[in-house]
Amino acid sequence: MATKRLAIWAVNLETIPESTQKAAVRSLYNYIGCAIGGSNHPTVAKAHKALEPLFGRSTSTLLGTSSQCDLQHAALLNGIASHVHDYDDTHLATIIHPAGPVASAILSYAEYQGSVTGDELIIALVAGIEASCKLGLAVWPEHYDIGWHITSTTGSIGAAVAVGRLMKLSETQMAHAIGIAAVQVTGLREMFGSDTKSFHPGRAATNGITAALLARQDYTSSEQALEAKRGWANVVAGGGTPKLDELLEGLGKTWEIETNSFKPFPCGIVCHPAIDGAIQCHTELTQTHKLDPQEIEKVSLRVHPLVAELTSKKEPRDGLEAKFSVFHGCAVGLLYGKAGPAQYADEVVTSTEVISVRDRVSIEADSSLAADEAYLSLDHSDGTKLEKHVSHAVGSLQVPMTDEQLTAKFIDQVSLVVGEDAAGRWSEKAWNLCNARDVGTEIRR
Amino acid sequence: MATKRLAIWAVNLETIPESTQKAAVRSLYNYIGCAIGGSNHPTVAKAHKALEPLFGRSTSTLLGTSSQCDLQHAALLNGIASHVHDYDDTHLATIIHPAGPVASAILSYAEYQGSVTGDELIIALVAGIEASCKLGLAVWPEHYDIGWHITSTTGSIGAAVAVGRLMKLSETQMAHAIGIAAVQVTGLREMFGSDTKSFHPGRAATNGITAALLARQDYTSSEQALEAKRGWANVVAGGGTPKLDELLEGLGKTWEIETNSFKPFPCGIVCHPAIDGAIQCHTELTQTHKLDPQEIEKVSLRVHPLVAELTSKKEPRDGLEAKFSVFHGCAVGLLYGKAGPAQYADEVVTSTEVISVRDRVSIEADSSLAADEAYLSLDHSDGTKLEKHVSHAVGSLQVPMTDEQLTAKFIDQVSLVVGEDAAGRWSEKAWNLCNARDVGTEIRR
Repeated sequence: MATKRLAIWAVNLETIPESTQKAAVRSLYNYIGCAIGGSNHPTVAKAHKALEPLFGRSTSTLLGTSSQCDLQHAALLNGIASHVHDYDDTHLATIIHPAGPVASAILSYAEYQGSVTGDELIIALVAGIEASCKLGLAVWPEHYDIGWHITSTTGSIGAAVAVGRLMKLSETQMAHAIGIAAVQVTGLREMFGSDTKSFHPGRAATNGITAALLARQDYTSSEQALEAKRGWANVVAGGGTPKLDELLEGLGKTWEIETNSFKPFPCGIVCHPAIDGAIQCHTELTQTHKLDPQEIEKVSLRVHPLVAELTSKKEPRDGLEAKFSVFHGCAVGLLYGKAGPAQYADEVVTSTEVISVRDRVSIEADSSLAADEAYLSLDHSDGTKLEKHVSHAVGSLQVPMTDEQLTAKFIDQVSLVVGEDAAGRWSEKAWNLCNARDVGTEIRR
Repeated sequence: MATKRLAIWAVNLETIPESTQKAAVRSLYNYIGCAIGGSNHPTVAKAHKALEPLFGRSTSTLLGTSSQCDLQHAALLNGIASHVHDYDDTHLATIIHPAGPVASAILSYAEYQGSVTGDELIIALVAGIEASCKLGLAVWPEHYDIGWHITSTTGSIGAAVAVGRLMKLSETQMAHAIGIAAVQVTGLREMFGSDTKSFHPGRAATNGITAALLARQDYTSSEQALEAKRGWANVVAGGGTPKLDELLEGLGKTWEIETNSFKPFPCGIVCHPAIDGAIQCHTELTQTHKLDPQEIEKVSLRVHPLVAELTSKKEPRDGLEAKFSVFHGCAVGLLYGKAGPAQYADEVVTSTEVISVRDRVSIEADSSLAADEAYLSLDHSDGTKLEKHVSHAVGSLQVPMTDEQLTAKFIDQVSLVVGEDAAGRWSEKAWNLCNARDVGTEIRR
C-alpha cells in the first residue's frame, strides 16, 4: 500500500497548515539563494560546458543568470549549484537536503509549463519534500550508513511527486511516476569531496522530471514500487527493516518541512556553536564596550569533541580548507561579526588581519557538551573579559534562523554573484514567489 | 585499485583476439536487430511522446526509423526498444543483457561525434561489455537476488567506459567517468512486467553518456568509486562480498563477450529446448517424409519441471500470453518450422490452424532432465513416429546460434517493422558496421 498511499495523498493534498506554508516559503527562499550563490562555481561551469551541446529548447532559467536552457538541463544545473557550497537546507532527522532535488525540478518545470501559480508551487514543494523526508526516515539510518547519499536517493522520488503535482497526474499515474523515479537510485557518499556530490541533487531533479513525464503518458511501472519484496525500500535499506507504513501513515499529520533547518554559516555544522558565540562577542565588544576586536588577547573555546575531530585545521590555506577550521570561523566572527561566504574567500583566509586573531584562538574538547553547544572565554588587551555560553547554535531547531537572518544570508551569497542591487531584487522575488500568478513569469522578470 | 584498474585497462585496450572480435560483431548485429524490432512497440511510442518536447539538436538515429533526435534521447529510446521484446542477448553467468546499455550509448554517440570507425566502435563495445559483465560477476548473485536489475546497474558503468573510449578520455578522466556512472544505480526487478523494465537499459545508456561527457570536462568523482567502503560494489552488493579484484584481474584474459548468447525464440528461455525439437520434427516431417504437419496426431514432451512451472499456459489468448505457453511454441515450430515474432502475433496465436495442433501437445515434467534439455515423441496420422532428444537447445553456449540463424532472426523481426527489403539492407549494414570508415554515415545511409 505504501506506493499508492503516497500517490493518493500527494494527488489530493489541498490545504496545508499555516506553519507548513511558512516553512515551505522559507525553504524555497533559502533554496533560491543557494542556487544563485552557487551558480558561478567552477563545478557548475564544468557541467554546463559538458552538457551545453545537448541543450534542447530554452524554456527554463539557470538561476543567477539571464540565460535559459531546456527543462532538464536547467533542473540539473540549478540542482548542482544549490548544493555546491554545502550551504543548503537540512532536515536534521535524516540529514537530507530536501529542497535541492524538489525545488530544482519544480521551478524548471513551472517555467516550462507556464501558468503555475505560487500556491501550486508551494503545494508541490511540500508534497515533494514530505515524500523525500518520510521515505528517508523509513530507511534511516542503515540506508545512509551503508553509503547512499540520502538527499538524492529520496530526492528523485520527491521530485517526481512534486512535478507530478504540477502536471495534475491521476492517482495511478502518480504511483507509476513514483515507481519510475524509484528505479533511478542516485548518489553515493564516496563522492563527498568531489564534484559528483553536487551532481547528486541535480540528477535527482532530472530523475523525477523524467519519471513524471513518462507517467503522464501512462508509461507503467509498479504500484508496489516502494514496498514490494524487490522494490525500492527493501533493496536500498542497507540491511535495515524499512518502516514504510509507519512513516507514510504520518503524511499530512506531521510535516517534515517544518523541521527543515538552514545553515547560517557555509561550513561544517559542528563549528556553528563556536562561530555563533564569536559573533555574539563581536557585537558586545564593538557595541557595548566600543573595543577593537583586532586587540583581542586570547579566546578559549570549550566544545564538543567532534569539533576538534572534524574542524581543527589550525592554518587553513584557502577557503575550502577554512570550512574545516573552527579557528578561522571564530576569527572572522570575532573580527567582522559575520561568517558568510565573503568571509571564506581565499584572500580573507590568508589575510594577516584574520591570521593574527585566528592564532589567538584555542580549543578544548569536552565530551560533557552537546554537539550544538559551546563555551567561549575572551580576554581583550584592555582587560575586558567576556564569557559566552551558546546552548543551541543559531540554525538549530531550537534557535531557527529568523526571516531577517535568512534574508541576510541570501543577500550575502547572492551579492557575490550578481551584485547587491540584483541580490535585493532576487530576494524580494524569492520571498514573494508563493504569491505569483505565474511562477515562470516572475522568475524571468 | 579496482576503479583505476578498469580505467587503465579500458583506455589502453588496443587489440582483441579474433574470437572476441567475432563475438562483438555478433552482439552488435543482434542488438541492432532487436532495437529495430522493438522500435514500433507501444512502450517506445509512449516514451517518445513523453520526451519529444525536450529533444535537442538532432544528431542520432532512432533505429528502425528515418528520424533522428539528440544523442541522449536516441540512446534512451533505442535502449528501450532493444529490450522491450525480451529478445536481446544474455550473458548467461549473470543474466545481464549487456549490449543494450552499451551499444545504445555508443551508436548514438558515434553519430553525434562523427568520424568513429568500425574498429573503434567494436573496441568500445568490447570495453563496455567486459566492464559490465565483470562487475556483474563481482556482485553476483546477491546483487540480483536482493532485487537489482543487473543489466542496467552494471550497464551504466559499461556505457560510460564505452563512450569514454570513443572520446579518448585519459586514464584519470575514465576513472571519474566510471565514478559518475557508478552513482546512478538504475533498475529494480520489481518492474519486470511493466514498461519500466525496458526503461532500465535505455536509462543506463544515458547515465553512461552523461558520465563520460562530464568526465571529459574534468568533472571529478572518486578514483575509488567501485571499491571504496561506501563505493558502488559494497553499497549494491546486497549483503554479499564483492569480488572486484578477482574479477577485474581477468580483464583482457577472459572475455565475457565470448559467452554472450542470443535467443532464437522471443519467449521464455525454458521453452527453447522443446521448440527446438519441434522445429527439428517439422523439418523431418516435411522434407524427409513429405507429410503435412497439420495431420499430426499427438506430441508428447518430456521437459524440465521449470517448463511446466513457468510456461504451461494451455490456451494463450494473445501474443503476450503465448510467450508463456510451451504448447504454442511447439505448435508453431511443428507447423511452420519457425517460432519468430511473426509466429507470436495475436492473430497467429488465435488461429484455428495453430490451436488444433496446440491442443494435441502434452507435457510431462521430469526432474532428471537438464534445464536446456527436452524429449519429443510425435505420432503422425499416417503412422509415422518421430523421436527427438534435444540435449542443449539452440542458443545455448553449447549450441550457439550460427550466423545464418542470427541473420534469420534479424530479418524476421526487422521485416515486421520496416518490410523485407529494408530488413535486408539493415542486415547487411549491421554485419558490416565493424568495417565502417564512419559509423555515423553508415547508420544514416
